[in-house]
Amino acid sequence: MSQAPRILRKQTGNFLEDFVPGQVFRHKGGKTVTEGLFTTFTEFAMTANPLSKNARYARAYGYQGLVCSPGLTMLVAFSQTVEDVSENARANLEYIDMRFGAPLYVGDTVEVETRVLGIKASSSRPNLGIVSVQSTARKNPGERDEAIVLTWQRKVQVYKRDDAASLNEGEVPPDEVECALWLPPYSKRTDYKSLAHLSSRDSYFEDLEPGTLIEHSRGRTMTDEHIHLTAVLDNTSQVHCNQFMIDLDPQQYVGGKLIIFGGIPFVLCLGLSSPDVGDNALGDIAYATGRHTAPLFAGDTVFAATEVLGKRDLPGRPDLGVVETRLLGHKFELDSGAKHDDAPPGWKKTRIFELERATAIKRRSHYAG
Amino acid sequence: MSQAPRILRKQTGNFLEDFVPGQVFRHKGGKTVTEGLFTTFTEFAMTANPLSKNARYARAYGYQGLVCSPGLTMLVAFSQTVEDVSENARANLEYIDMRFGAPLYVGDTVEVETRVLGIKASSSRPNLGIVSVQSTARKNPGERDEAIVLTWQRKVQVYKRDDAASLNEGEVPPDEVECALWLPPYSKRTDYKSLAHLSSRDSYFEDLEPGTLIEHSRGRTMTDEHIHLTAVLDNTSQVHCNQFMIDLDPQQYVGGKLIIFGGIPFVLCLGLSSPDVGDNALGDIAYATGRHTAPLFAGDTVFAATEVLGKRDLPGRPDLGVVETRLLGHKFELDSGAKHDDAPPGWKKTRIFELERATAIKRRSHYAG
Amino acid sequence: MSQAPRILRKQTGNFLEDFVPGQVFRHKGGKTVTEGLFTTFTEFAMTANPLSKNARYARAYGYQGLVCSPGLTMLVAFSQTVEDVSENARANLEYIDMRFGAPLYVGDTVEVETRVLGIKASSSRPNLGIVSVQSTARKNPGERDEAIVLTWQRKVQVYKRDDAASLNEGEVPPDEVECALWLPPYSKRTDYKSLAHLSSRDSYFEDLEPGTLIEHSRGRTMTDEHIHLTAVLDNTSQVHCNQFMIDLDPQQYVGGKLIIFGGIPFVLCLGLSSPDVGDNALGDIAYATGRHTAPLFAGDTVFAATEVLGKRDLPGRPDLGVVETRLLGHKFELDSGAKHDDAPPGWKKTRIFELERATAIKRRSHYAG
Repeated sequence: MSQAPRILRKQTGNFLEDFVPGQVFRHKGGKTVTEGLFTTFTEFAMTANPLSKNARYARAYGYQGLVCSPGLTMLVAFSQTVEDVSENARANLEYIDMRFGAPLYVGDTVEVETRVLGIKASSSRPNLGIVSVQSTARKNPGERDEAIVLTWQRKVQVYKRDDAASLNEGEVPPDEVECALWLPPYSKRTDYKSLAHLSSRDSYFEDLEPGTLIEHSRGRTMTDEHIHLTAVLDNTSQVHCNQFMIDLDPQQYVGGKLIIFGGIPFVLCLGLSSPDVGDNALGDIAYATGRHTAPLFAGDTVFAATEVLGKRDLPGRPDLGVVETRLLGHKFELDSGAKHDDAPPGWKKTRIFELERATAIKRRSHYAG
Repeated sequence: MSQAPRILRKQTGNFLEDFVPGQVFRHKGGKTVTEGLFTTFTEFAMTANPLSKNARYARAYGYQGLVCSPGLTMLVAFSQTVEDVSENARANLEYIDMRFGAPLYVGDTVEVETRVLGIKASSSRPNLGIVSVQSTARKNPGERDEAIVLTWQRKVQVYKRDDAASLNEGEVPPDEVECALWLPPYSKRTDYKSLAHLSSRDSYFEDLEPGTLIEHSRGRTMTDEHIHLTAVLDNTSQVHCNQFMIDLDPQQYVGGKLIIFGGIPFVLCLGLSSPDVGDNALGDIAYATGRHTAPLFAGDTVFAATEVLGKRDLPGRPDLGVVETRLLGHKFELDSGAKHDDAPPGWKKTRIFELERATAIKRRSHYAG
Repeated sequence: MSQAPRILRKQTGNFLEDFVPGQVFRHKGGKTVTEGLFTTFTEFAMTANPLSKNARYARAYGYQGLVCSPGLTMLVAFSQTVEDVSENARANLEYIDMRFGAPLYVGDTVEVETRVLGIKASSSRPNLGIVSVQSTARKNPGERDEAIVLTWQRKVQVYKRDDAASLNEGEVPPDEVECALWLPPYSKRTDYKSLAHLSSRDSYFEDLEPGTLIEHSRGRTMTDEHIHLTAVLDNTSQVHCNQFMIDLDPQQYVGGKLIIFGGIPFVLCLGLSSPDVGDNALGDIAYATGRHTAPLFAGDTVFAATEVLGKRDLPGRPDLGVVETRLLGHKFELDSGAKHDDAPPGWKKTRIFELERATAIKRRSHYAG
């Protein structure tokens, strides 16, 4: 170019003053689940449920093939909303009323819409506020098997572009979104018992006792692989992958380093819990609420535990029951000065994640009796 | 073995004195595009064009399914030539007249042939010289949909095995290779506008202004994942993956450390530019020329910018236009002594890559009007 | 929960005193080979045989499509046995009589059973003993193409849960397991020669000379990617992925750091050898014995060599021959005090792996003559 070019730098994502209650985003992109994506996340997270590992098992149960784990379904759907909703967020505050619908398979394409439910200024920090949204993920729009796979609300703390901008404060009620977990019918002709050795022996409905805290035995150290994993999800938020931006002004960023995308500990905690509480599930029904309570960084080792809160029958399905749990994620941090009952000497235990969870679980009586 | 065995160490690749003008390599291996390969590179590179993300969108546009991005097509084809042409290279000097043909899909098998166009000794360095080659990548040889997917020339600086060896200097003219971008026909029956929300609103032919420099907003930090990514491409060049070799004699190697394969910044710069200039493309037509201008290492953060150089009609396709751009990649390096207008204090901006690019881009009038 | 919950921590895997001679494990999970898994390991290991890279080549040879390399088949099958057999192991001592059967394809599901052959206390270490097992991996149980893909024995050094526990010492003979490498018939109608450029020119049966040691030219540096790769295989052993556990008591663990799962150097050594001895193989027939002779850590660079031990006809297959080799893996370690003939000054060469191998290899006369 002979002349100095006009320089253009496009904004990506919205800032607090851009949101309007009732506004709807039809998110860009959409995402077809490939076998590459499927394997990466199922196995990264140490998912143990054979529905996501063993196609002959999944088909015998009445699914079309390998089934995306709840964590993968959540990651695919959620990530589609990042650019419009949270590219300029400081933190994701809460997941609310997340409900699963149709099973998600390899080959399915997920597209997501989000409705803005509310905008609220921060009383203490003039450059921040809270945006509430409701998102719904649909698979295969316009095709015969079009269906909702996930719906959820979340609250997210978003930066203003201009501290002096006025906001469209207010709120609208959420839509009623019909979304209930699809369950394959129990078939008298299927020899479920011949498959029972493929899932764990002691994680049936009958085994899970309210009032129990199950400490899942495995831990998993995160590496800088999180940069790649986050890109694989189309989550382009720069706080996860742009080290140069962090180096220019570390104090601006949580921990002064690249923070791991919350979807990673979300799916990893689900995976770590899976041999003990998910192996005999036919699916997660809903997450009433969930939140990240501390940041996760490369080098941290993630552990998980599950509190069994309650259990109940699932109407119309004598072969299944609903187990209500609280999934807890934690890591250990050096803490030379103190002694903690729940951590080895010199360390403290830091809660990183919690999720209220209702799961549809097989009864041993019907599947392995 | 009772006796001391005869020790054999096979040479891999060719040295400068091995090449002959007019010589043809039919490269070994070939490579079938799997969903694993597809996902790894599409998403690693943050490709935003829904043709490579959303199978229902790609099918509605007249493709068979998810389409390999130009960067992935280039990586798959180029890498097949590494062992014969550049396993013993010091540097890849230039890409020339790279032209795209048929779309590349998951399941397609790519095989590549290369013709040596010229050999020239270096006037200043007796152990080096330049080899010019022309390569053509074909998919599914012998099958009904056999087609050329990419053809290109490149110049590469290659070491001699023996400094005293005489060379087959000379040149032959390149073949005329018929290779033009396949474009799905514009169909009056397709409701393109119902899909318009899936690509960005402001990257149509009408939006791209010659004389503009678009600084793409995202950066991506490279980690030692590059070793794995390079292996996934069948690029076995030891300077990318053999740390022991580097440690034995660091001064011999650029930067004294493992250098990232040039195909990685190539595809990453394309991906980083993709929300702003590639999201509404039906494909890249050609790269007239391209080169790597500085090495990239693990830990560097890659940024990209696009100069819009010109635009023109595409004969016979009123729904499309051709946009000519220069894609630029850069990173920042510490530079405490100086002040630079285009970098934060204490840093300098280093150009790592440039590519002259012609892209077939949709007109808003026909696709989102 | 209002009351303090009852805390439950499930044991994973078995300890020495849990094993009984003759006992059979039908392992949990099972694993369907996806294109994600296929690509990750084929290409991580630099496998060069076109049967695993080029689907049109594989189909022309009479396979259904891309064929899992022997290393990948072994990894998928072996990993299914880890939780029951070696989750609480100190080391895997030996692979014995590993034999391949049916080819493994993308889409196939592998399930594995293991029989305990023997338990023996350690004479010197009261908290350890040796368990011998025989495992057999079957694909697609209950379907038309059900077949054994791999059978093997191994010896593993396992910890006791309780040093005072008494053991079920004893042994039972191994089962006779019918498992022989499936080979596609040689077809007079197939134009194999037209495909000969796709594999290496000098690795036919005729080329491999007993009494030769082939030093494979490539090295590959391992990174902490091994954590992810190990998870992808469902190998959940904590010594590979739980840095916190190591940090609490480094002396307890080999090298005081995360050790790389032995399956990784196993498949990587096979891959590094593949251009020179595997490129024209139709499959590995058997590994009579194999062992890991030193640990591998992130940062180490892996090299491989092959001793050609012998060769013989394959009855009924004049187009093929059997080559017997010993595959050797090594790395280099700093050793400033000494001089070694087989290592650069300041380094020593450490053998990490060895494997007795019989491979069915094409004759040039029939395939490229």
